[in-house]
Amino acid sequence: MNHSYIEKILKGDRVAIARAISMVENEHPGSLTLLKSIYPNTGNAYRVGITGPPGAGKSTITNKLAKYYRSENKRVGIIAVDPTSPFTGGALLGDRVRMTDVELDEGVFIRSMASRGSLGGLSKKAKEAADVLDASGCDIILLETVGVGQSELDIARASDTTIVVLVPESGDSIQAMKAGLMEIADFFVLNKSDRAGAEQAVMSIKMVLNFKPKHDGWTPDVIQTTANEGRGIVEVANKISEHSAYLTNSKLLGHKRADRIIERIRELIGEQLRIEFWNEERNKILHQKIEDVIAFKETPFDVAEYLLKYYKK
Amino acid sequence: MNHSYIEKILKGDRVAIARAISMVENEHPGSLTLLKSIYPNTGNAYRVGITGPPGAGKSTITNKLAKYYRSENKRVGIIAVDPTSPFTGGALLGDRVRMTDVELDEGVFIRSMASRGSLGGLSKKAKEAADVLDASGCDIILLETVGVGQSELDIARASDTTIVVLVPESGDSIQAMKAGLMEIADFFVLNKSDRAGAEQAVMSIKMVLNFKPKHDGWTPDVIQTTANEGRGIVEVANKISEHSAYLTNSKLLGHKRADRIIERIRELIGEQLRIEFWNEERNKILHQKIEDVIAFKETPFDVAEYLLKYYKK
Repeated sequence: MNHSYIEKILKGDRVAIARAISMVENEHPGSLTLLKSIYPNTGNAYRVGITGPPGAGKSTITNKLAKYYRSENKRVGIIAVDPTSPFTGGALLGDRVRMTDVELDEGVFIRSMASRGSLGGLSKKAKEAADVLDASGCDIILLETVGVGQSELDIARASDTTIVVLVPESGDSIQAMKAGLMEIADFFVLNKSDRAGAEQAVMSIKMVLNFKPKHDGWTPDVIQTTANEGRGIVEVANKISEHSAYLTNSKLLGHKRADRIIERIRELIGEQLRIEFWNEERNKILHQKIEDVIAFKETPFDVAEYLLKYYKK
Repeated sequence: MNHSYIEKILKGDRVAIARAISMVENEHPGSLTLLKSIYPNTGNAYRVGITGPPGAGKSTITNKLAKYYRSENKRVGIIAVDPTSPFTGGALLGDRVRMTDVELDEGVFIRSMASRGSLGGLSKKAKEAADVLDASGCDIILLETVGVGQSELDIARASDTTIVVLVPESGDSIQAMKAGLMEIADFFVLNKSDRAGAEQAVMSIKMVLNFKPKHDGWTPDVIQTTANEGRGIVEVANKISEHSAYLTNSKLLGHKRADRIIERIRELIGEQLRIEFWNEERNKILHQKIEDVIAFKETPFDVAEYLLKYYKK
């Protein structure tokens, strides 16, 4: 890895950062060396996950929060995770459309990441992109995900504070619970609070929260916003600070980060084992055996067993 | 594995089926042997994935489709995947609430699956549960998922036909596209079509579909339903038949199933490699090294490398 290139990333050079994230996104062979080189410079950015059902206004809240942090002169990184299809390639709702307010601000780095049809791996790439932004000197990183699935929950778990954004629509809190969002929220934002039913929605979220066993001395709250008018954004930022202070004082931040490191090591090893296993020869055997499985002469379990035995030779 | 127990599953004994799916869900040590034993009896059920944003009415459509197939005297399996939080455990929206119309029908087997906080693995378990239902003699399996995340897309990919359910709300088709649903849909269902804006929504979905490169000679269509009144359900079932015939005639069904087998073998091997690697000793080393990583004396990459070298000894 070119030393001066690493230096550029650490100094916050936008072109270098963009290139580094592209390397991570495309699984460039050099990305591991890159991530290793910048690792000692990570750990300074506070990571906020922003998730919730489609259409809740997560992009607007992310945008307004970024503006708020800029007013405090903080450097902001934004990673918007869209599991967009390969055929749109994220272009139709790309960076430019979503973040008009902050896009020209040199203190904000925005990146959309799409799955582009790859099998999984998106949450891993998003976390690696966050490491790049962290090392580049961001004070705060906002990780926005369309949150329902497992990989989105993984991204939320990779954050220091996780916010779940809901809207005052009938059954929305039930749907959120159904989607597993209640569990991961450090607090809730009820956006579009100028709509009818907002008070009722707050009540129903609070009611659901009462089912949740209290632990760790932190009680998730509900903050009301009307993000497109900027209302409630300061309160959201204050709640993030409050949660950050709580995590630091209770030493939970350290535990969270240790868990993340363990997870990271397990991922790195799993990947390496996979790469080493699936050499050309084993891939060839796999494809030869498929016909037998289709004809029910063998089961997938037999083939897996055969390949694993072969590996141990 | 007890032979008579396997026989019971294959004969469609409900208690035996329920127990088998629980084994799969809880990763019971015997589940692999079980799945291997029943494998030769799979491959007869047609698998339909039903996905879409929360609140679109997927459960209602699944319910009504099951009723329709029962009227044709087909045996129906339903797997509803809820990435529900551990603290609700799926109980609040359990099987009984969702499927009142068909729950007492002996020809329908319903199972809700929740992630219960486990790291991933839900899509794998859902696919395995589908294998159990397949072997037990179901003619059709409906896989309902709250579809946005990667694991839900994986489940959809495990289906022969995938239906995406949307509602005529402003921007819903854009949101669906954003969430990667457009790519996986073999056709769309616009539910709650009695609502205002239905025609416009159909138009906008069709417009988006025009962006999609045509391939394989199949053009995704939009079917309008008002599922809670049962309207449009026959049309949905007909479209499923049409797609099924198309897949069979074009030999794509075989390709799809071959891909699924390859995926399955890769999963089995990945799991086995992971289990073998993470023995007590390596877990101990991992936890010893964490302090050094937190103190930035080592990187996660160093630790992974160390453990991998150690493995090869």
